[in-house]
Amino acid sequence: MEGKEEDVRLGANRYSERQPIGTAAQGAADDKDYQEPPPAPLFEPGELKSWSFYRAGIAEFVATFLFLYITILTVMGVSKSPSKCATVGIQGIAWSFGGMIFALVYCTAGISGGHINPAVTFGLFLARKLSLTRAIFYIVMQCLGAICGAGVVKGFQQGLYMGNGGGANVVASGYTKGDGLGAEIVGTFILVYTVFSATDAKRNARDSHVPILAPLPIGFAVFLVHLATIPITGTGINPARSLGAAIIYNRDHAWNDHWIFWVGPFVGAALAAIYHQVIIRAIPFKSRS
Amino acid sequence: MEGKEEDVRLGANRYSERQPIGTAAQGAADDKDYQEPPPAPLFEPGELKSWSFYRAGIAEFVATFLFLYITILTVMGVSKSPSKCATVGIQGIAWSFGGMIFALVYCTAGISGGHINPAVTFGLFLARKLSLTRAIFYIVMQCLGAICGAGVVKGFQQGLYMGNGGGANVVASGYTKGDGLGAEIVGTFILVYTVFSATDAKRNARDSHVPILAPLPIGFAVFLVHLATIPITGTGINPARSLGAAIIYNRDHAWNDHWIFWVGPFVGAALAAIYHQVIIRAIPFKSRS
Amino acid sequence: MEGKEEDVRLGANRYSERQPIGTAAQGAADDKDYQEPPPAPLFEPGELKSWSFYRAGIAEFVATFLFLYITILTVMGVSKSPSKCATVGIQGIAWSFGGMIFALVYCTAGISGGHINPAVTFGLFLARKLSLTRAIFYIVMQCLGAICGAGVVKGFQQGLYMGNGGGANVVASGYTKGDGLGAEIVGTFILVYTVFSATDAKRNARDSHVPILAPLPIGFAVFLVHLATIPITGTGINPARSLGAAIIYNRDHAWNDHWIFWVGPFVGAALAAIYHQVIIRAIPFKSRS
Amino acid sequence: MEGKEEDVRLGANRYSERQPIGTAAQGAADDKDYQEPPPAPLFEPGELKSWSFYRAGIAEFVATFLFLYITILTVMGVSKSPSKCATVGIQGIAWSFGGMIFALVYCTAGISGGHINPAVTFGLFLARKLSLTRAIFYIVMQCLGAICGAGVVKGFQQGLYMGNGGGANVVASGYTKGDGLGAEIVGTFILVYTVFSATDAKRNARDSHVPILAPLPIGFAVFLVHLATIPITGTGINPARSLGAAIIYNRDHAWNDHWIFWVGPFVGAALAAIYHQVIIRAIPFKSRS
Repeated sequence: MEGKEEDVRLGANRYSERQPIGTAAQGAADDKDYQEPPPAPLFEPGELKSWSFYRAGIAEFVATFLFLYITILTVMGVSKSPSKCATVGIQGIAWSFGGMIFALVYCTAGISGGHINPAVTFGLFLARKLSLTRAIFYIVMQCLGAICGAGVVKGFQQGLYMGNGGGANVVASGYTKGDGLGAEIVGTFILVYTVFSATDAKRNARDSHVPILAPLPIGFAVFLVHLATIPITGTGINPARSLGAAIIYNRDHAWNDHWIFWVGPFVGAALAAIYHQVIIRAIPFKSRS
Repeated sequence: MEGKEEDVRLGANRYSERQPIGTAAQGAADDKDYQEPPPAPLFEPGELKSWSFYRAGIAEFVATFLFLYITILTVMGVSKSPSKCATVGIQGIAWSFGGMIFALVYCTAGISGGHINPAVTFGLFLARKLSLTRAIFYIVMQCLGAICGAGVVKGFQQGLYMGNGGGANVVASGYTKGDGLGAEIVGTFILVYTVFSATDAKRNARDSHVPILAPLPIGFAVFLVHLATIPITGTGINPARSLGAAIIYNRDHAWNDHWIFWVGPFVGAALAAIYHQVIIRAIPFKSRS
Repeated sequence: MEGKEEDVRLGANRYSERQPIGTAAQGAADDKDYQEPPPAPLFEPGELKSWSFYRAGIAEFVATFLFLYITILTVMGVSKSPSKCATVGIQGIAWSFGGMIFALVYCTAGISGGHINPAVTFGLFLARKLSLTRAIFYIVMQCLGAICGAGVVKGFQQGLYMGNGGGANVVASGYTKGDGLGAEIVGTFILVYTVFSATDAKRNARDSHVPILAPLPIGFAVFLVHLATIPITGTGINPARSLGAAIIYNRDHAWNDHWIFWVGPFVGAALAAIYHQVIIRAIPFKSRS
Repeated sequence: MEGKEEDVRLGANRYSERQPIGTAAQGAADDKDYQEPPPAPLFEPGELKSWSFYRAGIAEFVATFLFLYITILTVMGVSKSPSKCATVGIQGIAWSFGGMIFALVYCTAGISGGHINPAVTFGLFLARKLSLTRAIFYIVMQCLGAICGAGVVKGFQQGLYMGNGGGANVVASGYTKGDGLGAEIVGTFILVYTVFSATDAKRNARDSHVPILAPLPIGFAVFLVHLATIPITGTGINPARSLGAAIIYNRDHAWNDHWIFWVGPFVGAALAAIYHQVIIRAIPFKSRS
């Protein structure tokens, strides 16, 4: 019960603190009820024997499968129509990507953490929130799920799929590969930074219901990046999504740009992890704060 | 007060557990304060004498009536206009279906559970969350409500209604019946899986406010499936909605495909129930976990 | 502390109850910690001497002013453009009405209850949630606010305002006055039913944070009704909004239909009040339940 | 624990109070557990030595950088296309501005208060929620972040950026400078009033989870103002956003109107602060209430 009383006290005093900030500032030195969890070990042999480990992998597979299925199907519905006005439009595509992440993170957060994206897994691994074994397992399952999801969409109407770009990510004409890489880096930074903010252990210590609300800003981050960068790269910020569409579409021009959709998201995720751990959480300087 | 203290302790320790996962993982073996509710009996004679049973049926009727009224009216507003740009568009139709489910589940969850969809009722029945008597009563009331809702829309402007497809679900030209069936199965899987995730007893034990937030992801799931599959089948994933429009529209080509909008949703709901109970909750193996 | 412990016990046991329903059913006979508040008196002289009474009226005035200002300005932006594609579109208008209700109910719920609509005030008065004095004061302030809001929009560009219908509600050609009246009745029923569901005293007893979340479904209800009935009447479901636009626009054809936008919403609100109090809450039969 | 018990008692009694209002009214004289925080000092030397002060400035810089990057990129994607139907549309631009504020306020509220807007900082300073030192530091960092964000967008495609208005705010032809100023004042009033409502100390005392939910209505307020006033000024309501685009675009006609996008937002923010402090909170008359 210790923690709870502390929490209540903190809540009641939040505005008596000397921090004259708008919407609930966190004290840097005086939150005693918050403790950074210890870093996850690189290898955790016990995991491999637990059902919850494999269940988490299955959940990542199913979630990424459903993610690609719905989003690529939405892209196809828009692409095939000569008049975009008679479709859900480019904005509808952005809602599809963002909304699916919202719904799927909500559904799978309690099972696997709801990553559904190798860049998110990579960012959380860098922050030592999960073991290397688990990170690799998740990324493999995500990529397999993505391939299957795109495959089912192709199965519906093969000609339509191949004739309309197959939902694959390529750098649009008029933009350089550097532009595309930059767009992927900043876009993934926004997503992974939102994930870090939403799942912050410090925040969770104070507001026990945060895990339930976190999926909404995470899904919105995906939606917003799509609004901005669909005209540049079609928006990857998720290597599994890019790989799944590339493998099923399998045309040269999609493969030529494919490295951008791995390097960009991983660099963006790493920058977000560094920004959150070093600037926001100041973990390297913890003894001083 | 027992349960509360337990909950507090769990919350405080959530991140000290050895589960290095992103957003709040559930321990597989160590949640002692959570207990699976016993399965509902097939027949529960006491129900039939309680006002809350009939009130729940009335609430399902009214909710499904309002659902069809608003959504089919929105479909008509878009269909009748030669330029989709001067309407709320296909995306507006998707918002209408998803948004109504959000608002109506929010309003009726406390009265009837807020199913508004025979496929949801069927899925929850398979998981033994409600009795067979109640399931049949709900499905009958949902279908009656849907027929009335579509009927009122036809009453507004009969010629317009019959001339624009009446909001009935049919497989679009260019797609096989198998495609339509597949789209309905996966679409309903997403919806019913979200319902299971949102109403999970385990989740509720930990976060008492989940029932209030659950309608949002459920409504979003409906919105997202519509974004993707309106071009294929007009999106059913709700046999009452398909039946109501079919009966009021009553043309041969709508009836020819009609079985798809019962078989698809029921198969999808059954798969979601199996996935949730067997993979996620591992209920058949409970003694081992 | 009594009530709290009761609440906790109820929460923990919610799923052990014999009610096999999907998303948190309310027991009909066994919630002991919930008490219907006594009906508000018709006249409450004390109110007239309190600052909070006049503050509430000012808040209703300001909120309805901002509501009309933003929504009618959005309508003008869409109406004046020859190509609806280069505007926020009809869907954007629906978002404007629904979103403003969401934001304004959120902001003023703690000050005045956040009605912003005479039909909502009328429905809550019928349920005896506020005194007659307060109801009349609110409705007068709402109408004054609406007139000022529409007036400012006209002030920006008078020719544009008068040439594009002034955001006034009229029954569209092709629909009878009966259709318009029906659309207003059912639309307001949905809104006021959502308000009753969201502010239910029983629900609040159980979930203390409901008042914070209530604005979202209420705003969504307004959005959804607009998606469906903008093509029929432009959607009133708010007599203050209809009156404000009619007075500032002041053309015969707007005045001819104007009664529809008072009779429809008031009938719809009354039906919602009856449905909630008699069917859902069963208040007339309270001694039996 | 004192405060908590009080809170529980208040919650349970909320509807037994004599305030017959719809959605949870606040008593004017009888909330004993709520205390207005003392006004922030103008200068607080201690701040300048704390890491959390500089961290907050960095967070404001990064957030405003990301805000301009995503929103101006979205504006460019819409502007460059001859057919708006093949883009996310004007409504997509409104979502981009509003959604980014939602996500960024969610992420940075715990670090800096999540202002991301000099007008918000100014309004909160007038209400003495933060020191003058901090206010100036925030505004400088916001402007720097905005310039960098717009600069990166220009860097992607310089010709495209300069040829399509660069996302700079100007008063549209057909509107006077007075119209533009008025639109900015009322628009910023709505935003800052929502910020005050959402971060109200009184509200927070009662509902501890409000800080988590506050970003949603704040983001929506931004979205709604954009729906209404994009046709008039392109919508500023954020001097940093206007300055960033003006400096990077750097054309005479953008600079001519630029004062409007500082005077308007600051006047609007001041009016919102006065309305909230004097009318809603009645702080000047506190001894009487």
